[in-house]
Amino acid sequence: MSGVHAPWTAPPALPERITIREVGPRDGLQPEEPWPAVWRAALAESLIRAGATTIEVAAFVSPKAVPSMADPAAVVRKVRDVLDPVDDPVTVVALVPNVRGAEMAAEARVDALTLTVSASEAYSRRNVRMSVDESLAQVAAIRAAIGDDLPVDTVVSCAFGSPYEGDIAPAAAAEIGRRALDGGSTSLTYADTTGMATPRRVADLLAETGTDVGLHLHDTRGTALVNAFAAMQLGVRRFDTAVGGLGGSPFAAGAGGNLATEDLVHLCDDLGIATGIDLTALLAISAQLAEVLGHPVPSRVAAAGPRSRLHPE
Amino acid sequence: MSGVHAPWTAPPALPERITIREVGPRDGLQPEEPWPAVWRAALAESLIRAGATTIEVAAFVSPKAVPSMADPAAVVRKVRDVLDPVDDPVTVVALVPNVRGAEMAAEARVDALTLTVSASEAYSRRNVRMSVDESLAQVAAIRAAIGDDLPVDTVVSCAFGSPYEGDIAPAAAAEIGRRALDGGSTSLTYADTTGMATPRRVADLLAETGTDVGLHLHDTRGTALVNAFAAMQLGVRRFDTAVGGLGGSPFAAGAGGNLATEDLVHLCDDLGIATGIDLTALLAISAQLAEVLGHPVPSRVAAAGPRSRLHPE
Repeated sequence: MSGVHAPWTAPPALPERITIREVGPRDGLQPEEPWPAVWRAALAESLIRAGATTIEVAAFVSPKAVPSMADPAAVVRKVRDVLDPVDDPVTVVALVPNVRGAEMAAEARVDALTLTVSASEAYSRRNVRMSVDESLAQVAAIRAAIGDDLPVDTVVSCAFGSPYEGDIAPAAAAEIGRRALDGGSTSLTYADTTGMATPRRVADLLAETGTDVGLHLHDTRGTALVNAFAAMQLGVRRFDTAVGGLGGSPFAAGAGGNLATEDLVHLCDDLGIATGIDLTALLAISAQLAEVLGHPVPSRVAAAGPRSRLHPE
Repeated sequence: MSGVHAPWTAPPALPERITIREVGPRDGLQPEEPWPAVWRAALAESLIRAGATTIEVAAFVSPKAVPSMADPAAVVRKVRDVLDPVDDPVTVVALVPNVRGAEMAAEARVDALTLTVSASEAYSRRNVRMSVDESLAQVAAIRAAIGDDLPVDTVVSCAFGSPYEGDIAPAAAAEIGRRALDGGSTSLTYADTTGMATPRRVADLLAETGTDVGLHLHDTRGTALVNAFAAMQLGVRRFDTAVGGLGGSPFAAGAGGNLATEDLVHLCDDLGIATGIDLTALLAISAQLAEVLGHPVPSRVAAAGPRSRLHPE
């Protein structure tokens, strides 16, 4: 009775492939108890072996402010030690908050930088203690400091709304992105930091930004996957995900994580959309991750197994 | 900075309204510790006050086999006592497994019956101890016993696959539905009993069944909402949901529940799709439900609150 399915052809056309930026070793582990740098590097390496080609491995932030991200240069060096000898085309990414972090990341030989600018003034002031204008000024300052070699992706946080101001107008979020490009950012990612996006809000934002943007979705309200699906239908080809669905606010543990890499890969596998990531290998990493963390990861596919898993007889 | 959004017009067109069959008092509570009939009726009444117009309140099954569904006639009578005096257009539904159950349900004055036939031979034999053929024969026997007055909706379980056989061919699932119609069923619902559906599998099945069917989705792998969204795009207008996302296999507690009513209503509210259900009232019921059950409900919207919830200052 096993079904043979034709490729899914329902309109509108879904893409043949998408690019996933794996943010588990950085964004995913940030709210967890600190892991030593070698463990974070080992996680990154296993994700690369599973097929991740763009991976955020570290944040060059103050270890006092964010102990879980200490020793970022050591993480990058360890990953480079594995990649360099085989001339691997993997893009090693680090988050940087300012010029000092960008300089350290460049010195550590990352391939690309991400930095965050919030579309919410209140969120910006509370979370990075800078106004949105001050935060945008970092983009130009970083570009001036590091030159033109490194790509810089600006992640516009709270792009779909903020828990302080409520909805953020799509035009206002898009304007933050435009100003980041003006400051020297090479690409943009719009983040649903607090899970307020819906397919309609995604469409509204894309109408302002165009579809050559990345999306960074959170599953706070169980909408990350439907938003990713709608975004793929509308033309988006770049997504941030975290193995296990880790990450998100430490004040909403288990409920607010990132879109889980395995959940998106599981969906894309069945829709015939290539991600380059091997689901079986990924689920093994995710299971090991849950063991090391000592708590289940939020991903539902991690909990239930892939749709092909049969009942043990 | 609050955004004013035009109605979402991204292709393909979404419906103006859908019909939700609330199955929380029956399917949702079935795997829980038994509740007295008056509590189940009270839950149904509160859901009706929140706007549910079609609601499965009871199962006329053996109380020895399913203690949580004992006294179904008492539940129906209590709900009727509230509805009848106000001439309420609510459709009160009961699940029946056989002729005896159907006769009892008819006598209790339900408005409609549901019965389940599995698309999976192995699942059918293990769960209702009947072959699929024997189960289909119940449809005709029930219709013969109760006459033509009551609508009978046949729920085709494991329509997207079974944990025993794996994938079920869409044509095979559709054929079970056709045979149920031949036997006197008035409508069909296809159930993703074990969370194996994806948007592509939904499209494949609808290509065989047409879109004048209901869908009963489970969130085992976090795909219930994206499947509902894809189904709405493809023309489906009837969905089963359970308040809180309760229900599903007791062997996968917390991970395999029904599509949560609040998750679908939350999505539809933002997409401008009418459900008739008041989200605020529903979330209050859901919160109370979690308190009475003594465990959180699976719904993510129940956990995080609606997208409009601002940070408490």
